[in-house]
Amino acid sequence: MKTIPNEGILAPAGFHAGSVACGIKSAAGALDVTVIVSETCASAAATFTTNRFAAASVHWNRTLLPTDDLRAVAVNAGNANAFTGQQGHDDVRATTELVARLLRCRPSQVCVASTGIIGHPLPMDKLTRGITDACDGLSLGASAADCAARAIMTTDTHAKLAAVESEAAGRKFRIGGIAKGSGMIAPNMATMLAFITTDAAVAPDVLHRCLRGIVDVTFNCITVDGDSSTNDTVLVMAGGASGTVIESEGASLDAFRQALHAVLADLCHQIVADGEGATHVVRVRVLDAADVADAERAARAVAESQLFKCAIAGGDPNWGRIVCALGYSGADVRAETTTVSIGDVCVVRDGVPTGQDASAPMQLPEFDVTISLGRGEGDASVLTCDLTHEYVSINADYHT
Amino acid sequence: MKTIPNEGILAPAGFHAGSVACGIKSAAGALDVTVIVSETCASAAATFTTNRFAAASVHWNRTLLPTDDLRAVAVNAGNANAFTGQQGHDDVRATTELVARLLRCRPSQVCVASTGIIGHPLPMDKLTRGITDACDGLSLGASAADCAARAIMTTDTHAKLAAVESEAAGRKFRIGGIAKGSGMIAPNMATMLAFITTDAAVAPDVLHRCLRGIVDVTFNCITVDGDSSTNDTVLVMAGGASGTVIESEGASLDAFRQALHAVLADLCHQIVADGEGATHVVRVRVLDAADVADAERAARAVAESQLFKCAIAGGDPNWGRIVCALGYSGADVRAETTTVSIGDVCVVRDGVPTGQDASAPMQLPEFDVTISLGRGEGDASVLTCDLTHEYVSINADYHT
Repeated sequence: MKTIPNEGILAPAGFHAGSVACGIKSAAGALDVTVIVSETCASAAATFTTNRFAAASVHWNRTLLPTDDLRAVAVNAGNANAFTGQQGHDDVRATTELVARLLRCRPSQVCVASTGIIGHPLPMDKLTRGITDACDGLSLGASAADCAARAIMTTDTHAKLAAVESEAAGRKFRIGGIAKGSGMIAPNMATMLAFITTDAAVAPDVLHRCLRGIVDVTFNCITVDGDSSTNDTVLVMAGGASGTVIESEGASLDAFRQALHAVLADLCHQIVADGEGATHVVRVRVLDAADVADAERAARAVAESQLFKCAIAGGDPNWGRIVCALGYSGADVRAETTTVSIGDVCVVRDGVPTGQDASAPMQLPEFDVTISLGRGEGDASVLTCDLTHEYVSINADYHT
Repeated sequence: MKTIPNEGILAPAGFHAGSVACGIKSAAGALDVTVIVSETCASAAATFTTNRFAAASVHWNRTLLPTDDLRAVAVNAGNANAFTGQQGHDDVRATTELVARLLRCRPSQVCVASTGIIGHPLPMDKLTRGITDACDGLSLGASAADCAARAIMTTDTHAKLAAVESEAAGRKFRIGGIAKGSGMIAPNMATMLAFITTDAAVAPDVLHRCLRGIVDVTFNCITVDGDSSTNDTVLVMAGGASGTVIESEGASLDAFRQALHAVLADLCHQIVADGEGATHVVRVRVLDAADVADAERAARAVAESQLFKCAIAGGDPNWGRIVCALGYSGADVRAETTTVSIGDVCVVRDGVPTGQDASAPMQLPEFDVTISLGRGEGDASVLTCDLTHEYVSINADYHT
């Protein structure tokens, strides 16, 4: 497996993208609409937010996916089209009809996604012009991929792309993706969107199964408590242009899964590193929990502790905040079997403070916190970032 | 019922307190030990943290309470004596033996409480001297009450006292209290301590039942998700010096409950208003939920949303963050029955944005967010504060 730099969703053969600035974002000239098109009818699958107030686009996509018949995804940033009632659903329908007319396909072959402010109707005049222009300008290559990645950004500070090339049964295939961050990852609702393309041929149900399994250990390990925004979506399209067929089991599926994992993990890492105001990336690894669910509970409690996240920002090896979070996590924990390391420095061994100073690893831009609970064989890890002044500035000043 | 200013735990007859600076806190001359003494054997009850790594003092107090035989509570700030193993338990035992010797009672008549850094053994030489001096200097009055309130502070910016006088069956009684905040209230672990005294005569089981009921709707409505620190404690002592007897039911119990609620609610409000870096106090009220549990879920989700707390700091009426939190709260919600007001301004009525501007109420230092879910008759409210730069500064810079 090798990494393909810069080409994101356009690294795999058979896809085009067009991106424009149509004025939905308030910043002049900011790209805010992208249309990603498959030359052929693609297999497609997605995972969505569990929020009860899911956006109109999420409702639409849920009725379509998984499918073996997707042609395009139209995405806008700057307006979430969430909590917009019947108007929101009507606007989604109009958008898919527009894309279908422009691409000469059916509305049921078009998915949509939105991110931005909640509770405001979509500015359909701007969006209509934007989508028309985007479909006029469909193209290939690194520049078009970068524009697509930029067009879905909100408070992200840079575009997020990833792609790999791998082999299955002696034939090459590629998987590429773009994503937008949920600002800081831990909080309750900022929207995360990711779009993945591949030129492998994969049946929709296989694609769906693969995606769900990998999202569970990637995107779902950078969000909080199942908290999710009204719009969160990870959508994958498999066009088959490489001619490489992925079977429903065996070596080809393993290769595909490994490549998909690499792309999603890469995008997740970029999202956390670009968390609003983030200056450190920390992987909280919990080992030897009573079971995997307990390991996840413990890892999430530490990764989401506001006080621990402040300690990371301050470079303070205050491991008391780690064990306290373990104590309220709901996981089966005992002091006498708990071991905690920050980076390579063991600060608590079997419940006893070692007295070692973990200041040095906490200065690193990226480090692990490794916790062994000594209660069983469950392991899990969650990626988090620090809570900084900059986060508060961004979110106190992001006005409606 | 009338409010007694300034006297806190010493407003009721029959209690003394002594407070000293013994060097457990690093700031020179900062009060860090207080001993609260009942002249008679008092009824006592308490509610404690649910953290699995509860401090040694919490373990000790749990074995004693409820009781009809408490004489004193010894408290230190600056060191939590949590995650300190057998040494921690030995130190609690030694502390209670010391207090018992000084007051000529039994160790089983002495409760202890601690707050501060986790994972460091108590400096017993300092604590021994501190407790000895505190017991030497037991006194009455507003100044002694204020010192006790100061001696339990950590990052609090001012002392928290409350007291009321009320009547039961034609006889007067008083209830007073002191508390220390959990810094910002929403986060995961900062310690909250409260000590309450009364000169009413109340049986231990009645006292315990009363306390639990009222803590559920006061202190438990300013913390997060059942998350609680290793040391959280609300402890009440009833000495009986007023001669006013509270029966196990009827009018006297109602009067006592009302007075206890007033004192606890007052302390809670002070804690939230003094939340680390807080500049606004917001009461999130959820009405007409499917049931009370659902109302609590919804109110907590909004009150704990990091993004909404930043919006409060910025004075931004971004109600999208409110409905999004409702959407992931797990409560039974439907857009078409959801109504949201910020202060007096209705921003969403039956799922439809009203277009009204709620900027004005959000400038107030204190306001309500009122949410009607239209699903039943469950009501709940949670008190919260904003998330500010100052919060990050305090918690990034609070070094071990």
